[in-house]
Amino acid sequence: MPLLDPTHPLKRAWDALILFAVVVVAVELPTRLALRYTFPGEAIIDGAVTALFCVDILAQFNTAIVAAGRRVTDRKEIARRYLRTWFAVDALSAIPFGLIFPAGQLARLVRMLRLLRMLRLLRLARIMQEAQRNTSISPGLLRLAFFMFWAGLIAHWIACGWIAMHPDLQMGAETDRIQTYLVALYWCVTTLTTVGYGDITPSTSAPGHMLYTMGVMVIGVAMYGTVIGNIASILSKIDASRSAYLDKMDRINAFMRHHGLNADLQDRIRTYHEFLWETNHGYDQSKVVADLPQSLRLEVAMQINRRIIAKVPLFEDCEPDILHELVLNMQSAVFGPGDLIVREGDQGESMFFINGGSVDVISGGVVVRRLGEGDYFGEIALLTTRPRTADVRAVDYCSMYTLDQKTVDRVVQRYPDFAARMQERVEERMGDLDTGTIAPVTLL
Amino acid sequence: MPLLDPTHPLKRAWDALILFAVVVVAVELPTRLALRYTFPGEAIIDGAVTALFCVDILAQFNTAIVAAGRRVTDRKEIARRYLRTWFAVDALSAIPFGLIFPAGQLARLVRMLRLLRMLRLLRLARIMQEAQRNTSISPGLLRLAFFMFWAGLIAHWIACGWIAMHPDLQMGAETDRIQTYLVALYWCVTTLTTVGYGDITPSTSAPGHMLYTMGVMVIGVAMYGTVIGNIASILSKIDASRSAYLDKMDRINAFMRHHGLNADLQDRIRTYHEFLWETNHGYDQSKVVADLPQSLRLEVAMQINRRIIAKVPLFEDCEPDILHELVLNMQSAVFGPGDLIVREGDQGESMFFINGGSVDVISGGVVVRRLGEGDYFGEIALLTTRPRTADVRAVDYCSMYTLDQKTVDRVVQRYPDFAARMQERVEERMGDLDTGTIAPVTLL
Amino acid sequence: MPLLDPTHPLKRAWDALILFAVVVVAVELPTRLALRYTFPGEAIIDGAVTALFCVDILAQFNTAIVAAGRRVTDRKEIARRYLRTWFAVDALSAIPFGLIFPAGQLARLVRMLRLLRMLRLLRLARIMQEAQRNTSISPGLLRLAFFMFWAGLIAHWIACGWIAMHPDLQMGAETDRIQTYLVALYWCVTTLTTVGYGDITPSTSAPGHMLYTMGVMVIGVAMYGTVIGNIASILSKIDASRSAYLDKMDRINAFMRHHGLNADLQDRIRTYHEFLWETNHGYDQSKVVADLPQSLRLEVAMQINRRIIAKVPLFEDCEPDILHELVLNMQSAVFGPGDLIVREGDQGESMFFINGGSVDVISGGVVVRRLGEGDYFGEIALLTTRPRTADVRAVDYCSMYTLDQKTVDRVVQRYPDFAARMQERVEERMGDLDTGTIAPVTLL
Amino acid sequence: MPLLDPTHPLKRAWDALILFAVVVVAVELPTRLALRYTFPGEAIIDGAVTALFCVDILAQFNTAIVAAGRRVTDRKEIARRYLRTWFAVDALSAIPFGLIFPAGQLARLVRMLRLLRMLRLLRLARIMQEAQRNTSISPGLLRLAFFMFWAGLIAHWIACGWIAMHPDLQMGAETDRIQTYLVALYWCVTTLTTVGYGDITPSTSAPGHMLYTMGVMVIGVAMYGTVIGNIASILSKIDASRSAYLDKMDRINAFMRHHGLNADLQDRIRTYHEFLWETNHGYDQSKVVADLPQSLRLEVAMQINRRIIAKVPLFEDCEPDILHELVLNMQSAVFGPGDLIVREGDQGESMFFINGGSVDVISGGVVVRRLGEGDYFGEIALLTTRPRTADVRAVDYCSMYTLDQKTVDRVVQRYPDFAARMQERVEERMGDLDTGTIAPVTLL
Repeated sequence: MPLLDPTHPLKRAWDALILFAVVVVAVELPTRLALRYTFPGEAIIDGAVTALFCVDILAQFNTAIVAAGRRVTDRKEIARRYLRTWFAVDALSAIPFGLIFPAGQLARLVRMLRLLRMLRLLRLARIMQEAQRNTSISPGLLRLAFFMFWAGLIAHWIACGWIAMHPDLQMGAETDRIQTYLVALYWCVTTLTTVGYGDITPSTSAPGHMLYTMGVMVIGVAMYGTVIGNIASILSKIDASRSAYLDKMDRINAFMRHHGLNADLQDRIRTYHEFLWETNHGYDQSKVVADLPQSLRLEVAMQINRRIIAKVPLFEDCEPDILHELVLNMQSAVFGPGDLIVREGDQGESMFFINGGSVDVISGGVVVRRLGEGDYFGEIALLTTRPRTADVRAVDYCSMYTLDQKTVDRVVQRYPDFAARMQERVEERMGDLDTGTIAPVTLL
Repeated sequence: MPLLDPTHPLKRAWDALILFAVVVVAVELPTRLALRYTFPGEAIIDGAVTALFCVDILAQFNTAIVAAGRRVTDRKEIARRYLRTWFAVDALSAIPFGLIFPAGQLARLVRMLRLLRMLRLLRLARIMQEAQRNTSISPGLLRLAFFMFWAGLIAHWIACGWIAMHPDLQMGAETDRIQTYLVALYWCVTTLTTVGYGDITPSTSAPGHMLYTMGVMVIGVAMYGTVIGNIASILSKIDASRSAYLDKMDRINAFMRHHGLNADLQDRIRTYHEFLWETNHGYDQSKVVADLPQSLRLEVAMQINRRIIAKVPLFEDCEPDILHELVLNMQSAVFGPGDLIVREGDQGESMFFINGGSVDVISGGVVVRRLGEGDYFGEIALLTTRPRTADVRAVDYCSMYTLDQKTVDRVVQRYPDFAARMQERVEERMGDLDTGTIAPVTLL
Repeated sequence: MPLLDPTHPLKRAWDALILFAVVVVAVELPTRLALRYTFPGEAIIDGAVTALFCVDILAQFNTAIVAAGRRVTDRKEIARRYLRTWFAVDALSAIPFGLIFPAGQLARLVRMLRLLRMLRLLRLARIMQEAQRNTSISPGLLRLAFFMFWAGLIAHWIACGWIAMHPDLQMGAETDRIQTYLVALYWCVTTLTTVGYGDITPSTSAPGHMLYTMGVMVIGVAMYGTVIGNIASILSKIDASRSAYLDKMDRINAFMRHHGLNADLQDRIRTYHEFLWETNHGYDQSKVVADLPQSLRLEVAMQINRRIIAKVPLFEDCEPDILHELVLNMQSAVFGPGDLIVREGDQGESMFFINGGSVDVISGGVVVRRLGEGDYFGEIALLTTRPRTADVRAVDYCSMYTLDQKTVDRVVQRYPDFAARMQERVEERMGDLDTGTIAPVTLL
Repeated sequence: MPLLDPTHPLKRAWDALILFAVVVVAVELPTRLALRYTFPGEAIIDGAVTALFCVDILAQFNTAIVAAGRRVTDRKEIARRYLRTWFAVDALSAIPFGLIFPAGQLARLVRMLRLLRMLRLLRLARIMQEAQRNTSISPGLLRLAFFMFWAGLIAHWIACGWIAMHPDLQMGAETDRIQTYLVALYWCVTTLTTVGYGDITPSTSAPGHMLYTMGVMVIGVAMYGTVIGNIASILSKIDASRSAYLDKMDRINAFMRHHGLNADLQDRIRTYHEFLWETNHGYDQSKVVADLPQSLRLEVAMQINRRIIAKVPLFEDCEPDILHELVLNMQSAVFGPGDLIVREGDQGESMFFINGGSVDVISGGVVVRRLGEGDYFGEIALLTTRPRTADVRAVDYCSMYTLDQKTVDRVVQRYPDFAARMQERVEERMGDLDTGTIAPVTLL
């Protein structure tokens, strides 16, 4: 038999089926034991569940293990790991106690043993861990869903336990049973939420009932208090970057109020930060990318900058190596309306690619031309020793990518062909500048 | 029809009117459906609301959208955005179900459909987001107000639902209705706050009532627990800078206690930090300003430093460019009583403008003169190669602005006229120093 | 009349008296109004309180204001500030409504007006702020005490309100009144803590009672929930440095467990951190001192290092200026048993003063001598160009102060007399080293 | 009598015995006083406890004190410390009030005095502190266990107090007593968890009962609210590094979603971080090690790197000094599949030891050989001036240790023998490279 692939869709479907069976058992079995009802075909269903669980044990022995990017395919190692971790739980939950001792004196005790089936729920913890690792769903949402699931299940069990302690409630017609269950659940929820109406209370002459109630109050209330108390913090983490943004704006607002900046300036500063937020949602790319290994870093940079790469004609005829070198070293920058990006006569330190917004090229106080998305400028000062040949001023909010002198120098040195091509364009453009004829389609 | 301006006061008033109508509907409609009362003119009011909502839909199609400093005025784009986002909700809430099927067999169901009007409340979330972005009110306070509003509205709905489930409570005279409503609200509040007196409880023989109560307990209590549990954290954020200050003082106090500093010194250190706090309220200006674009940074600096600019005579006859250059590079500094700010004979690294407090200029152990608000000193050592010509010692707590050598050099180089004027003053003053006659009105 | 000094003990005693009167009024007045009892001398006490409050208003006009290290003594400025802030509250609370309309038809209303006296409690907020600023008591503890005080007072008021709404409870003998009050307080506490036994509940036929109860539940429960929910965080801040230490140890323990360090090493690392903790309680001196002005920094350094200054004979005959220079530049350092502090032949970069523990001076593998508290070593390599003349190894945990080359050089340059004295000692000691005779009393 | 060693197992066993006796007394004594039962041998047990406590006092006077790595063995100092701290408590709790006044008129009062025995519980706080310091158990877990213990004990005391106030409940048969106690405990738990059924409430005509209940509600509820509210934060600290990891992954996921990276790349980035997590569990070694003294730092480095030291043949014949020097300066590094670790022709800056994973050595586009665990490479460029002689590319996730040029230079300079040995190997290998014959067993 060949090894099963744990990431295969069929294997995943099987896991989902097992999970569904476990949850059904965990809900139905305690109810049946508490309300002491039976239904035709009980034995068949019990047998089916046993069969499912046994097949799953076999499957586990024949499934490769994937951990941290390495795949374990050695059968001995797989068996060793499984025996050491989940085998005991899986085996216990697969024993068909209901079928072995279907009736007789031991029946009651054996019925209880069937609850061992619920041990399988422990694997839910593992499933949650895996889900946290392998999906991009917010771990906060996942945890909340898990809390909900467990809180509901435990409330169900507590209600079943309450019924089991009151033999007078248990027998009766089906509608009575539903009514009985609802009352028990109602008592349970009333207690767990600490509302405690007091319309249903344990008899103070029954020590067992009082002990059970105390247990529910101490454990259950602690649990519910924890869940309820944490909903807020979980929710706040679901959109952590947004709330960090709001906190920052709060500090900035307080600062502006304290210094009495006028309303117009306050408004423009808020607009600027809103623009920043809409551009990058508060993620500091360099931080996320910093601790990735080089190969992943490159791919992230390529995917993030794919829009600008597609826009800039210069990159079209680039060899991949040069493109990688350039993309890896691009920095993003933002300018507001009226900002002077490049000042004529200064020594240039970087060149700019426009990702959004537009800029005016100003020479001698006159707007020579307007550049927009996909245009670039500032390369003349990097490739020659000439200072900046014109002012460049942002027209509205601009998001740019910049390349610094060091990167350009390295590329020029390593890839002389590419350098020559750039040089050509520069000379073309400088000629335009000198003769005062900048064709609208050529870049500055 | 021309495009409406979303920031126009009339448009804002219209939005407020719509909001008011939505809230009234959300409060009144469930009450009417639960208590089954009618009043003359019901149809007129329903019609008016429908009309309002329809006009609002039209208005939405004709209002420019402002987002992140850019204004969308293209009608197609506006329609596309509106249809994709809020149109469905707005349209559903505008259908006059109450008028279409005013009576007959379907009446009951149709009554319920009228609750769709409350869908418009969803837009409150957007209004809150906008409020957080566009006002300088603390987001903590805004969130608290929103929590309050929603908590009240939900309590109201729960009470209406409770009445709707008890048909025996519903009919009757008006005073009875108020009484009925109050009892239902009382039950609701008792349950949501988890007080749970138990004087009003659902009948344990009515499954629906128990289920409703359980729902209220689980959802409502979770919600209220969240709100109540978060009031403290919201409140603490309203004055975050103050509580950060108190935490810092706490650490400093613990440090001073641990080292057994004497009471007088402890007191002076606390006074110093109090002074700092009253001066800048714990806002680190450089941090707030750092990520603003150049143009905004300049305006912030100009507005923050406008007091000192108005005070210093040197700045009066400055061209704007020079002023901008100087103001952008000013650093604030604080000195305590007795601090030696400038030491005679040292090499000067910065010049000082006094924003508050006073300093003594000491030469040869003698206080030559006292400088106060608006005076400046220390420029001699920056403009010439001479070392500091005198000691300067703080008399009380002084807040200063400093300019470093680099900035002064750059300004001198770029603006020779201004440099000449400063040089003149310096020579004047140095002459005074050499001859020992410093006129009280000239600066050091 | 001369200005009063706000920090004078008599003025403080007067403030305490006023505070005591306000609290008594806030407790007694609502009780009297709710239980409708009278006692002989009521008018006299009312008059006395009015007199007290009036005198206090006068005193306020004649007390200097101290804020952030500056003292306001200008009477006009004092009056202006007082009129703008607390005057209205103080004046309202000083009006003797009980005396003006002692009886008659308006009596009931007027009785209520007397509650305006409690407005003065608002000043408690200011007193708390001042207490937070001016004492070294943990702000956490202060806030907790304030919370307690307010929680108690509000519970008292709620109980009084409950009695006021039940006219049947109010009249009667004195023991009955106490009993009535206790029952009301019992109801109040049961409700505020959300226990809600339900043995005392408002009549559901009295709308006012229900509304009052709902108000108490919503506001009171929110308040109590906040207080209770925050006790933990307040308590954790009372010893913030200790809990930071425990958190750090937790991380270190997890790290050691993860890497499977052996038990002995784990133990030694824990011991080391315990030693560090006992030495400096986790306070980073340089951080606290960093933002103090120079003069305060000097005094803090002098007081913290006063023990080592008293121990080292070299410092005894130092001029204050040199001492200040040295003390300001001392760094503390810690070495564990067996650490090599100085290695023979290395180029020296700092000299060491022993504050606690002992070290062995080892030359040629032989322990030449042991140095202890107050001894210093390592100055030879700083004052001459010779490399380290011997190994120095820590015997047990040592806390040291170090001076670096730069500081020593500056001192030597500025104070040639002191340098000469040190040089003398060094030559003496080097002679000892060369001849191999180091007298036990001379230092290395 | 010789001094006892506080860390001796027998001393520890004695401490545990005393602790057990204290806890038994704290549980049993209040029960006996509340339920007023007696049992034969009461006096004997009282006497035994007294004897135990007296012997413990003697033992305390004769036990060395160990604090922060220093051992206090001076008997005077030990006595002084003990008298100043715990002696009073220990002495009070050792007085056998039950034996001195076994009966008579004063009996009731004296019974109460026996509760002084419980003062010894105060020492539990010290035991907890010591446990936090000396074990590697998570302080969160310890605190949780302590909270549980105290919460249980206080609930027990409250129940005993409730019984003591109801004389009618106290006498009776043993089963009745248990029943009585259970009812009291049930009331107590119902109240403390704020469930408040209301089936057992204090009589509103008994002021004492109401006051007691209010006290339990205010103090107890505050305490329980704190405990319950903190369980979540305690639990989150038990695995702080894991939750920090999940938070980080959350941010990274949000970043990837925002930039629309494709699913495959997202998956690989998650896998990479999972690998990192499994490798070092989020502990930043350099941070933990940074503030340790040199000797401990060395031992930590030796133990952490013991696996790689055992693997690399080069280290086998190293003197300990060289090994220490190398190990102290090793940095860990991680590379992902496909990463170019060394580029042919570059100037080398570090050498690499493979701790896990494998790499391909590529020369002229051909994989010359594969290196795995324990191999090292990159030393040629460090020891000679030649640039990198080949590309090295990671095959799968590799964890490496690196040594930088500076360290290697220092070692080469200080230990010429070792340098010679390395040089030999290098020349051997370079010969291989030149002749193109690299034997599979020699290293690159």
